[in-house]
Amino acid sequence: MTSATRPQGTRGGRASIGSQGGTGGTGPGTADGHEATAILERARVSVDPELRAAVDALPGPLRRIARYHFGWEHPDGTPATGNAGKAIRPALVLAAAAALGGPAARAAAARAAAAVELVHNFTLLHDDVMDRDATRRHRPTAWTVFGDADAILAGDALQALALGMLAEDPHPASTAAVARLAACVVELCAGQQVDTALERRDPAEVTLDEVLAMAEAKTGALIGCACAVGALYAGAADDDVDALDAFGREAGLAFQLIDDVIGLWGDPRHTGKPAGADLAARKKSLPVVAALSSGTPAADELAALYAAPFEPADLDRTVLAVERAGGRAWAQEQAADRMSRAMSELARAIPDPEAAGGLLSLAEFVTRRST
Amino acid sequence: MTSATRPQGTRGGRASIGSQGGTGGTGPGTADGHEATAILERARVSVDPELRAAVDALPGPLRRIARYHFGWEHPDGTPATGNAGKAIRPALVLAAAAALGGPAARAAAARAAAAVELVHNFTLLHDDVMDRDATRRHRPTAWTVFGDADAILAGDALQALALGMLAEDPHPASTAAVARLAACVVELCAGQQVDTALERRDPAEVTLDEVLAMAEAKTGALIGCACAVGALYAGAADDDVDALDAFGREAGLAFQLIDDVIGLWGDPRHTGKPAGADLAARKKSLPVVAALSSGTPAADELAALYAAPFEPADLDRTVLAVERAGGRAWAQEQAADRMSRAMSELARAIPDPEAAGGLLSLAEFVTRRST
Repeated sequence: MTSATRPQGTRGGRASIGSQGGTGGTGPGTADGHEATAILERARVSVDPELRAAVDALPGPLRRIARYHFGWEHPDGTPATGNAGKAIRPALVLAAAAALGGPAARAAAARAAAAVELVHNFTLLHDDVMDRDATRRHRPTAWTVFGDADAILAGDALQALALGMLAEDPHPASTAAVARLAACVVELCAGQQVDTALERRDPAEVTLDEVLAMAEAKTGALIGCACAVGALYAGAADDDVDALDAFGREAGLAFQLIDDVIGLWGDPRHTGKPAGADLAARKKSLPVVAALSSGTPAADELAALYAAPFEPADLDRTVLAVERAGGRAWAQEQAADRMSRAMSELARAIPDPEAAGGLLSLAEFVTRRST
Repeated sequence: MTSATRPQGTRGGRASIGSQGGTGGTGPGTADGHEATAILERARVSVDPELRAAVDALPGPLRRIARYHFGWEHPDGTPATGNAGKAIRPALVLAAAAALGGPAARAAAARAAAAVELVHNFTLLHDDVMDRDATRRHRPTAWTVFGDADAILAGDALQALALGMLAEDPHPASTAAVARLAACVVELCAGQQVDTALERRDPAEVTLDEVLAMAEAKTGALIGCACAVGALYAGAADDDVDALDAFGREAGLAFQLIDDVIGLWGDPRHTGKPAGADLAARKKSLPVVAALSSGTPAADELAALYAAPFEPADLDRTVLAVERAGGRAWAQEQAADRMSRAMSELARAIPDPEAAGGLLSLAEFVTRRST
């Protein structure tokens, strides 16, 4: 983790990356965006059968909780055509396998991709319990519907499903992939542990390096692992597996930075979360910590707002203080920097831009989402 | 799951198994007990280094929570010489490996034994959060010391550690063992899910078959898995692995029945839990459900007591009602029946009583604990 540059104050500077800025659509308008959408759609076609078969093998009540969480069922068990998320991580597994091993490696990695998506969803189920988040993907979270115990147990079962199905995969890379995915789960837990511990700390004492390290563990690790697992399934050399992991980590951090920006300046109709939810919960998100540590007058205003309980009437003023203290511009510059590092790592493992195209499209897609 | 015979009313009938009845000691007095104690001690010597190395590889805060939970540290991080539990499950892994594969198989199974113990402790951490249990092994539970989030995350990390370290074990049985252990975790979660759901149900509508199935999933499954993993590490044939699993499941159910008996009639100084904790929480333990479904006058009295909030003054009367309705005698007869089935399964896989001796001693030890 390199030391983070402190943001400079800004007077409403605009986004330096991609299409943020209120175009209002969820679909990107660029050729890259179209390509990424097609890649995500093709990944869903490959991975969904593995994912559904795994979840449907769970015993009754756990299956129902998991199927609700994935958006496949309503709380009463009737079928839903819900939003199961963009499923970027399994798409990255397949794209990495294809980039390093061609179509055969991609086809062989479908189960591994489903395992990575199961791990992601296990962490979502548990994080929502711990964070008391009531909404995910525009729907009530599982714990609000079924209770804490059921959400915890469904998450536990998804972790076991993920590692168990990967271990049983006859592919020669399966053992290395299980070891990597299990180590990644430990890192995800450590990241979430730091996140919950940070919530209890005085905002003035939380450093940018701390929140960047936390975001790398909580978000970068699994995106890196997804790419590394794809590389393992392509039979890639250790150096290339590590480069793909680093590519994913950097892209994942860029993704988190943009996600935090969207959480503050995005349209709740598209984010699926209430406006200002992170601010209301006094979350020390990346732009907020950047703003608090900027040394600007707006930082002092933000610190005073964060020291008091949240008042809905203060929402706009708080968002503006983060922006004027440079939190938004810093996050967007950091995201651009991380994406540039991600590209370097990718080029190290896959010098041919055409072969790397799918991974590039996905990485750019997630960091070019509209606010 | 066979249908359970309804208990008959009793007028204070005494235990039909082993040394229950208030001798007051924790150490058994039989030769078998001495042998089991020696087996448990030898297992600890073999498994502890693997267990401690795995836990110590966790990142800082997660390591501290786990080390507290295992009784190796006080809450402030200073070393403790605590009670990490009897570690029966890893001892069963080693005993099964030794019984079917001799000393070499036993030595090779130490890591697998540690993985099984990690899974057990992951479930304890999570169950204590869900059940709001404040005491375990005579100490405050991890969630009461570190909070729910930390206890959940430490449990998640222990599951990942367990499956990851087993996958990385170069032993040829490791992949089959991971698959079996992961499937067992799903069953454990399903059992705990049923348990928490039963707590919300009218006691009069809960059947003995339901609670027996729940106890098999929640307790029998992992004890069966421990024996099966040991058999896998001995290179045993599929039939023998399955017989060892069935042996462990039946012995595990016997263990749970006796544990429930001890929970009601045991000495809190030895159980590590407050007297009547299960009754105070209105738990539908096996003796309680047996008593409630006995059709005796004491069953009606017990149902009336369970319909009202717990009053400490009613504790003795409640315990007596369970006993007079036959709950204690039924549980002890069921335990004896399960142990007899366990012996048959064991003899199927290991006809030589000398080879099976270690497994027998352990199984008898856990079902002969003093109250």
